[in-house]
Amino acid sequence: MKLTMRLGPRSYDIILRRGALGRVGQLVNLGRKVLVVTDSGVPQQYLSTVLAQCPHGVPVVLEQGEATKSLATIEHLCTIMLQHGFGRTDAVLALGGGVVGDAAGFAAACYMRGIDFINCPTTTLAQVDSSIGGKTAVNLAGTKNIVGAFHQPRLVVADPDTLASLPPRHMANGLAEALKAGLIGDAELFALFEKGCARQDLEEILYRSLAVKKTIVEADEREAGCRAALNFGHTIGHAIEASRGLARRQLYHGECVALGMLPMIEDASLRRRTRAVYKKLGLPSRIRYDGDEIFEFIRHDKKTGPDGAITVVKVPRLGECRLDKVPLEDLKAIIG
Amino acid sequence: MKLTMRLGPRSYDIILRRGALGRVGQLVNLGRKVLVVTDSGVPQQYLSTVLAQCPHGVPVVLEQGEATKSLATIEHLCTIMLQHGFGRTDAVLALGGGVVGDAAGFAAACYMRGIDFINCPTTTLAQVDSSIGGKTAVNLAGTKNIVGAFHQPRLVVADPDTLASLPPRHMANGLAEALKAGLIGDAELFALFEKGCARQDLEEILYRSLAVKKTIVEADEREAGCRAALNFGHTIGHAIEASRGLARRQLYHGECVALGMLPMIEDASLRRRTRAVYKKLGLPSRIRYDGDEIFEFIRHDKKTGPDGAITVVKVPRLGECRLDKVPLEDLKAIIG
Repeated sequence: MKLTMRLGPRSYDIILRRGALGRVGQLVNLGRKVLVVTDSGVPQQYLSTVLAQCPHGVPVVLEQGEATKSLATIEHLCTIMLQHGFGRTDAVLALGGGVVGDAAGFAAACYMRGIDFINCPTTTLAQVDSSIGGKTAVNLAGTKNIVGAFHQPRLVVADPDTLASLPPRHMANGLAEALKAGLIGDAELFALFEKGCARQDLEEILYRSLAVKKTIVEADEREAGCRAALNFGHTIGHAIEASRGLARRQLYHGECVALGMLPMIEDASLRRRTRAVYKKLGLPSRIRYDGDEIFEFIRHDKKTGPDGAITVVKVPRLGECRLDKVPLEDLKAIIG
Repeated sequence: MKLTMRLGPRSYDIILRRGALGRVGQLVNLGRKVLVVTDSGVPQQYLSTVLAQCPHGVPVVLEQGEATKSLATIEHLCTIMLQHGFGRTDAVLALGGGVVGDAAGFAAACYMRGIDFINCPTTTLAQVDSSIGGKTAVNLAGTKNIVGAFHQPRLVVADPDTLASLPPRHMANGLAEALKAGLIGDAELFALFEKGCARQDLEEILYRSLAVKKTIVEADEREAGCRAALNFGHTIGHAIEASRGLARRQLYHGECVALGMLPMIEDASLRRRTRAVYKKLGLPSRIRYDGDEIFEFIRHDKKTGPDGAITVVKVPRLGECRLDKVPLEDLKAIIG
């Protein structure tokens, strides 16, 4: 299956096909210098598969984990490109999950003020969400994605075969973002979760999620307006993710987003149905947290203006969403 | 005087006016958080003038010099913005020369994936050249401008009064880039240098230089083609600047560009006239250098492809230029 992200001169194809990782070189020019960035959690065989197609490939294996998303990593990647004499027409290829894609993408965005970026996501989360849309970034002083760039890839190759080796919890982690896409924009996608078996319908789930995101990104590439809809579940989700108390329990990003979506679903019956899907997927649907801590994090993280209001995304009914500017105090009540 | 850089949604005004530094707040909204970035070489009074217009201004004084253009500085600036809770609608203002503008501009380009950037150049070099066009960058491992972004400012305010305090050599350094603009695109600008007194005609020189650059940037914002004309004199100039032998003599950027332009002027009589202008301005027109060292630097710096050719800018006659792809061996002969 193929989708095309239509962004004028920055348009690109998203290839979603089993076995596609072995055929990247047929889709894009790999006959130049290619920095192949992966991390220690990605199976070695995927790296071998890609390198076999890159006669001038330079592999870099980063350490797995969020700590890798730093300016130090950008300096590291750019220095390697410099040492290998990378020029403007060379490329960076990311092979891995969101961390690899975000860091490698930002390095591609700023090396020589922007060179080609090819993204080959190998996790569910990256295949349904983070690999498309052009957001790249690293963290700084404990704040996620605060330094980065909008830099669209030249090509995205999502090979569902790479998901086969993922542990169930990783799979569910990514599917939370797919479920988000269904809740905000595609009732049929939600129905796939509700009635079917996610593992079995995986390719259709991936495709439909990408299609929801594609439509939103095409309408608002740089998040000046409606793209914020993709942050559904993320305001509270990020706060839960950052909260020290929960860090010890090591919740995954998708799990936190799942928890963050629930209070923003306005229809009680849809909330119940969503909880039932969580149960089926193995996602947490209730967790004890310190409401004050979550609230304080959001207040600081979102840099609310002097009016003390914050924009959140709400889902009034299945497949629809709206941006809502709410006073901070109201948000406190929502968090509970 | 005002010029408008027309780049669609990224268009902006360039204000060139004596005393304009005291009226920046009338031209752009300074009633938000503004990171005012300057360096230790910029007179304190200019910083006071700007801060007086910024009720929520956060001043940062960087160390003067090329070493400041580093990823460490970007991390420093972004960390300060984070600590002060800068949001997407806040801004960075650069007050200084090219180093300040390039570093502050890149910080603005990547903080939250891009916030407003206001550039107030206070050196001749920055006022005629580096402050407009949207190129921002830092250096890495001894290579200039290798990590950066295209990020257009929202406004450029060039106040010629700030040039009054510059020592003559600094003034000449900047005027070399203005002379470059004349050579590649404006015969009348060259005539101002040849027949008049640069100090006296300064505002017209600044204006005409900006106009030449504006036309070229508008035609090719991201240097996919003709914008490379602005690199006239820079291929050899950068090499001279980087050469260790000459570093001890501490040549300035404009002086190196001046030296680099001469071999690329094809008309012998124009070369003579240019040399005469250099003499008038106090720019070097002859210097002993190690041709092999210069050549090796260019070969490495320009990352020539397997065809061993390099694109240089030549001036066949006054006010005209062309891009020329030459074999490396020919360049060696030009360097001598």
